[in-house]
Amino acid sequence: MIKKIDHVAIVVEDIERALGVFREALGLQVSQTQSLPEQGVTIAFLPVGESEIELLEPLGPDSGVARFLATRGEGLHHICLEVEDIDAALAELKGKGLRLINETAVAGAHGRVAFIHPKSTHGVMVELLERPGSR
Amino acid sequence: MIKKIDHVAIVVEDIERALGVFREALGLQVSQTQSLPEQGVTIAFLPVGESEIELLEPLGPDSGVARFLATRGEGLHHICLEVEDIDAALAELKGKGLRLINETAVAGAHGRVAFIHPKSTHGVMVELLERPGSR
Repeated sequence: MIKKIDHVAIVVEDIERALGVFREALGLQVSQTQSLPEQGVTIAFLPVGESEIELLEPLGPDSGVARFLATRGEGLHHICLEVEDIDAALAELKGKGLRLINETAVAGAHGRVAFIHPKSTHGVMVELLERPGSR
Repeated sequence: MIKKIDHVAIVVEDIERALGVFREALGLQVSQTQSLPEQGVTIAFLPVGESEIELLEPLGPDSGVARFLATRGEGLHHICLEVEDIDAALAELKGKGLRLINETAVAGAHGRVAFIHPKSTHGVMVELLERPGSR
Protein backbone atom coordinates (compact mmCIF):
# COMPACT_ATOMS: atom_id res chain seq x y z
CA MET A 1 0.00 0.00 0.00
CA ILE A 2 2.76 2.49 0.93
CA LYS A 3 5.62 3.08 -1.52
CA LYS A 4 7.88 5.50 0.35
CA ILE A 5 8.09 8.56 2.56
CA ASP A 6 7.30 11.30 0.07
CA HIS A 7 8.22 14.14 2.40
CA VAL A 8 8.56 15.27 5.98
CA ALA A 9 7.10 18.72 6.64
CA ILE A 10 8.56 21.27 9.03
CA VAL A 11 6.78 24.47 10.10
CA VAL A 12 9.09 27.48 10.25
CA GLU A 13 8.56 31.18 10.91
CA ASP A 14 10.56 32.27 7.87
CA ILE A 15 11.67 29.97 5.03
CA GLU A 16 14.57 32.23 4.02
CA ARG A 17 15.96 32.11 7.55
CA ALA A 18 15.43 28.34 7.77
CA LEU A 19 17.39 27.86 4.54
CA GLY A 20 20.39 29.18 6.47
CA VAL A 21 20.30 25.82 8.25
CA PHE A 22 18.78 23.35 5.79
CA ARG A 23 20.58 24.65 2.68
CA GLU A 24 23.70 26.49 3.89
CA ALA A 25 24.63 24.25 6.83
CA LEU A 26 23.14 20.84 5.93
CA GLY A 27 23.90 21.26 2.22
CA LEU A 28 20.42 20.45 0.82
CA GLN A 29 19.19 22.13 -2.36
CA VAL A 30 15.82 23.76 -2.99
CA SER A 31 13.93 22.10 -5.85
CA GLN A 32 10.75 24.15 -5.67
CA THR A 33 9.22 27.06 -3.80
CA GLN A 34 5.57 27.95 -4.14
CA SER A 35 3.10 30.34 -2.57
CA LEU A 36 -0.32 28.75 -1.95
CA PRO A 37 -2.57 31.62 -0.76
CA GLU A 38 -5.68 29.40 -0.69
CA GLN A 39 -3.92 27.18 1.87
CA GLY A 40 -2.31 30.14 3.65
CA VAL A 41 1.27 28.91 3.26
CA THR A 42 4.47 29.30 1.32
CA ILE A 43 6.32 26.01 0.79
CA ALA A 44 9.84 24.99 -0.20
CA PHE A 45 10.90 21.46 -1.12
CA LEU A 46 14.45 20.16 -0.55
CA PRO A 47 15.15 16.66 -1.95
CA VAL A 48 16.89 14.12 0.33
CA GLY A 49 17.39 10.73 -1.34
CA GLU A 50 14.02 9.52 -2.65
CA SER A 51 12.18 11.85 -0.24
CA GLU A 52 11.99 15.58 0.38
CA ILE A 53 11.94 17.95 3.30
CA GLU A 54 9.09 20.44 2.98
CA LEU A 55 9.39 23.78 4.76
CA LEU A 56 6.04 25.43 5.55
CA GLU A 57 5.75 29.13 6.35
CA PRO A 58 2.33 30.61 7.18
CA LEU A 59 1.23 33.52 4.99
CA GLY A 60 -1.14 34.96 7.59
CA PRO A 61 -2.56 34.23 11.04
CA ASP A 62 -5.57 32.16 9.93
CA SER A 63 -4.17 28.92 8.55
CA GLY A 64 -3.76 25.66 10.42
CA VAL A 65 -0.01 26.07 9.99
CA ALA A 66 -0.14 29.51 11.65
CA ARG A 67 -2.09 28.07 14.58
CA PHE A 68 0.41 25.21 14.88
CA LEU A 69 3.26 27.74 14.96
CA ALA A 70 1.51 29.87 17.57
CA THR A 71 0.79 26.97 19.92
CA ARG A 72 3.69 24.54 19.39
CA GLY A 73 6.41 26.65 17.80
CA GLU A 74 8.64 25.67 14.91
CA GLY A 75 9.18 21.96 14.31
CA LEU A 76 8.03 18.75 12.68
CA HIS A 77 4.47 19.08 11.36
CA HIS A 78 3.50 16.04 9.28
CA ILE A 79 4.79 13.09 7.29
CA CYS A 80 3.56 12.32 3.78
CA LEU A 81 3.43 8.72 2.58
CA GLU A 82 3.13 7.95 -1.12
CA VAL A 83 0.53 5.32 -1.99
CA GLU A 84 -0.30 3.68 -5.29
CA ASP A 85 -4.08 4.06 -5.04
CA ILE A 86 -5.31 6.72 -2.63
CA ASP A 87 -8.99 5.84 -3.05
CA ALA A 88 -8.35 2.23 -2.05
CA ALA A 89 -6.14 3.38 0.84
CA LEU A 90 -8.79 5.76 2.20
CA ALA A 91 -11.52 3.11 1.92
CA GLU A 92 -9.36 0.62 3.79
CA LEU A 93 -8.38 3.08 6.54
CA LYS A 94 -11.98 4.19 6.99
CA GLY A 95 -13.06 0.55 7.16
CA LYS A 96 -10.52 0.01 9.92
CA GLY A 97 -11.99 2.87 11.92
CA LEU A 98 -9.39 5.58 11.34
CA ARG A 99 -10.64 9.16 11.43
CA LEU A 100 -9.93 10.99 8.17
CA ILE A 101 -9.58 14.76 7.78
CA ASN A 102 -10.28 14.30 4.05
CA GLU A 103 -12.81 11.53 3.42
CA THR A 104 -11.98 11.77 -0.28
CA ALA A 105 -8.74 12.89 -1.90
CA VAL A 106 -8.22 16.54 -2.82
CA ALA A 107 -5.83 18.19 -5.27
CA GLY A 108 -2.36 18.86 -3.83
CA ALA A 109 0.85 20.30 -5.24
CA HIS A 110 2.09 16.90 -6.50
CA GLY A 111 -1.03 14.79 -6.92
CA ARG A 112 -4.16 13.73 -5.05
CA VAL A 113 -3.78 13.97 -1.28
CA ALA A 114 -5.70 13.30 1.94
CA PHE A 115 -4.86 13.77 5.60
CA ILE A 116 -5.52 11.27 8.38
CA HIS A 117 -6.46 12.82 11.71
CA PRO A 118 -3.55 12.65 14.20
CA LYS A 119 -5.95 11.32 16.86
CA SER A 120 -6.03 8.10 14.80
CA THR A 121 -2.28 7.92 14.22
CA HIS A 122 -0.76 8.44 17.67
CA GLY A 123 -0.34 12.19 17.42
CA VAL A 124 1.21 12.13 13.96
CA MET A 125 -0.43 14.08 11.16
CA VAL A 126 -0.18 11.68 8.19
CA GLU A 127 -0.74 12.83 4.61
CA LEU A 128 -1.30 10.30 1.84
CA LEU A 129 -0.31 11.18 -1.74
CA GLU A 130 -1.05 9.48 -5.02
CA ARG A 131 1.15 10.86 -7.76
CA PRO A 132 -0.23 11.09 -11.32
CA GLY A 133 0.30 7.86 -13.30
CA SER A 134 0.88 5.86 -10.12
CA ARG A 135 -1.71 3.12 -10.81
CA MET B 1 26.81 15.43 2.72
CA ILE B 2 23.34 13.89 3.29
CA LYS B 3 22.44 10.63 1.53
CA LYS B 4 18.84 10.05 2.57
CA ILE B 5 16.27 10.18 5.36
CA ASP B 6 17.29 7.15 7.38
CA HIS B 7 14.25 7.21 9.64
CA VAL B 8 11.51 9.35 11.14
CA ALA B 9 10.95 8.68 14.85
CA ILE B 10 7.56 8.75 16.57
CA VAL B 11 7.08 8.65 20.34
CA VAL B 12 4.19 6.42 21.41
CA GLU B 13 2.85 5.28 24.77
CA ASP B 14 2.73 1.62 23.77
CA ILE B 15 4.39 0.13 20.69
CA GLU B 16 2.03 -2.86 20.56
CA ARG B 17 -0.97 -0.53 20.49
CA ALA B 18 0.68 1.72 17.88
CA LEU B 19 1.27 -1.30 15.63
CA GLY B 20 -2.51 -1.55 15.38
CA VAL B 21 -2.24 1.56 13.19
CA PHE B 22 1.18 1.42 11.57
CA ARG B 23 1.18 -2.33 10.84
CA GLU B 24 -2.47 -3.44 10.76
CA ALA B 25 -4.01 -0.35 9.15
CA LEU B 26 -1.17 1.19 7.12
CA GLY B 27 0.27 -2.21 6.17
CA LEU B 28 3.90 -1.63 7.21
CA GLN B 29 6.02 -4.52 8.49
CA VAL B 30 8.25 -4.58 11.57
CA SER B 31 11.89 -5.31 10.69
CA GLN B 32 13.37 -5.01 14.19
CA THR B 33 12.34 -4.44 17.78
CA GLN B 34 14.87 -3.80 20.50
CA SER B 35 14.89 -2.85 24.16
CA LEU B 36 17.61 -0.32 25.02
CA PRO B 37 17.53 0.00 28.84
CA GLU B 38 20.56 2.32 28.91
CA GLN B 39 18.61 4.77 26.74
CA GLY B 40 15.35 4.09 28.54
CA VAL B 41 13.41 3.09 25.43
CA THR B 42 12.03 0.21 23.43
CA ILE B 43 12.20 0.74 19.68
CA ALA B 44 10.57 -0.82 16.63
CA PHE B 45 11.60 -0.17 13.03
CA LEU B 46 9.17 -0.36 10.10
CA PRO B 47 10.74 0.01 6.63
CA VAL B 48 9.10 2.41 4.14
CA GLY B 49 10.93 2.61 0.81
CA GLU B 50 14.60 3.44 1.50
CA SER B 51 13.69 4.85 4.95
CA GLU B 52 12.11 3.54 8.13
CA ILE B 53 9.60 4.67 10.69
CA GLU B 54 10.96 4.22 14.22
CA LEU B 55 8.48 3.84 17.06
CA LEU B 56 9.88 4.88 20.47
CA GLU B 57 8.27 3.77 23.73
CA PRO B 58 9.75 4.93 27.06
CA LEU B 59 10.74 2.16 29.47
CA GLY B 60 10.46 4.37 32.56
CA PRO B 61 9.80 7.96 33.60
CA ASP B 62 13.40 9.22 33.46
CA SER B 63 14.35 9.24 29.78
CA GLY B 64 14.16 12.19 27.41
CA VAL B 65 11.52 10.27 25.49
CA ALA B 66 9.40 9.89 28.64
CA ARG B 67 9.66 13.63 29.31
CA PHE B 68 8.72 14.38 25.68
CA LEU B 69 5.66 12.13 26.05
CA ALA B 70 4.66 13.76 29.35
CA THR B 71 4.90 17.32 28.01
CA ARG B 72 3.98 17.04 24.31
CA GLY B 73 2.13 13.74 24.05
CA GLU B 74 2.52 11.15 21.33
CA GLY B 75 3.82 12.33 17.96
CA LEU B 76 6.78 13.07 15.73
CA HIS B 77 10.02 13.17 17.73
CA HIS B 78 13.03 13.40 15.41
CA ILE B 79 14.32 12.85 11.91
CA CYS B 80 17.52 10.92 11.20
CA LEU B 81 19.63 11.82 8.16
CA GLU B 82 22.26 9.41 6.89
CA VAL B 83 25.63 11.01 6.11
CA GLU B 84 28.74 9.54 4.54
CA ASP B 85 31.21 10.93 7.07
CA ILE B 86 29.74 11.96 10.43
CA ASP B 87 33.01 13.43 11.77
CA ALA B 88 33.30 15.78 8.79
CA ALA B 89 29.60 16.65 9.08
CA LEU B 90 29.86 17.51 12.79
CA ALA B 91 33.00 19.61 12.21
CA GLU B 92 31.25 21.54 9.45
CA LEU B 93 28.06 22.11 11.45
CA LYS B 94 30.02 23.22 14.49
CA GLY B 95 32.07 25.57 12.31
CA LYS B 96 28.81 27.07 11.04
CA GLY B 97 27.68 27.77 14.60
CA LEU B 98 25.12 25.00 15.10
CA ARG B 99 24.67 23.72 18.63
CA LEU B 100 25.35 19.99 18.92
CA ILE B 101 23.94 17.67 21.59
CA ASN B 102 26.76 15.23 20.76
CA GLU B 103 29.99 17.06 19.90
CA THR B 104 31.41 13.72 18.75
CA ALA B 105 29.58 10.70 17.40
CA VAL B 106 28.40 7.96 19.76
CA ALA B 107 27.44 4.34 19.14
CA GLY B 108 23.84 3.86 17.98
CA ALA B 109 21.76 0.85 16.94
CA HIS B 110 22.82 1.10 13.27
CA GLY B 111 26.15 2.96 13.33
CA ARG B 112 27.72 6.11 14.72
CA VAL B 113 25.20 8.82 15.56
CA ALA B 114 25.00 12.38 16.87
CA PHE B 115 22.09 14.72 17.60
CA ILE B 116 21.91 18.39 16.66
CA HIS B 117 20.11 20.59 19.18
CA PRO B 118 16.61 21.56 17.96
CA LYS B 119 17.32 25.18 18.91
CA SER B 120 19.75 25.21 15.96
CA THR B 121 17.41 23.47 13.51
CA HIS B 122 14.13 25.37 13.82
CA GLY B 123 12.61 23.14 16.48
CA VAL B 124 13.47 19.88 14.74
CA MET B 125 15.56 17.29 16.57
CA VAL B 126 17.95 16.07 13.86
CA GLU B 127 20.00 12.89 14.27
CA LEU B 128 22.93 12.20 11.96
CA LEU B 129 23.94 8.59 11.26
CA GLU B 130 27.00 7.14 9.59
CA ARG B 131 26.47 3.46 8.79
CA PRO B 132 29.45 1.08 8.93
CA GLY B 133 31.38 0.93 5.66
CA SER B 134 29.86 4.20 4.47
CA ARG B 135 33.14 6.00 3.64
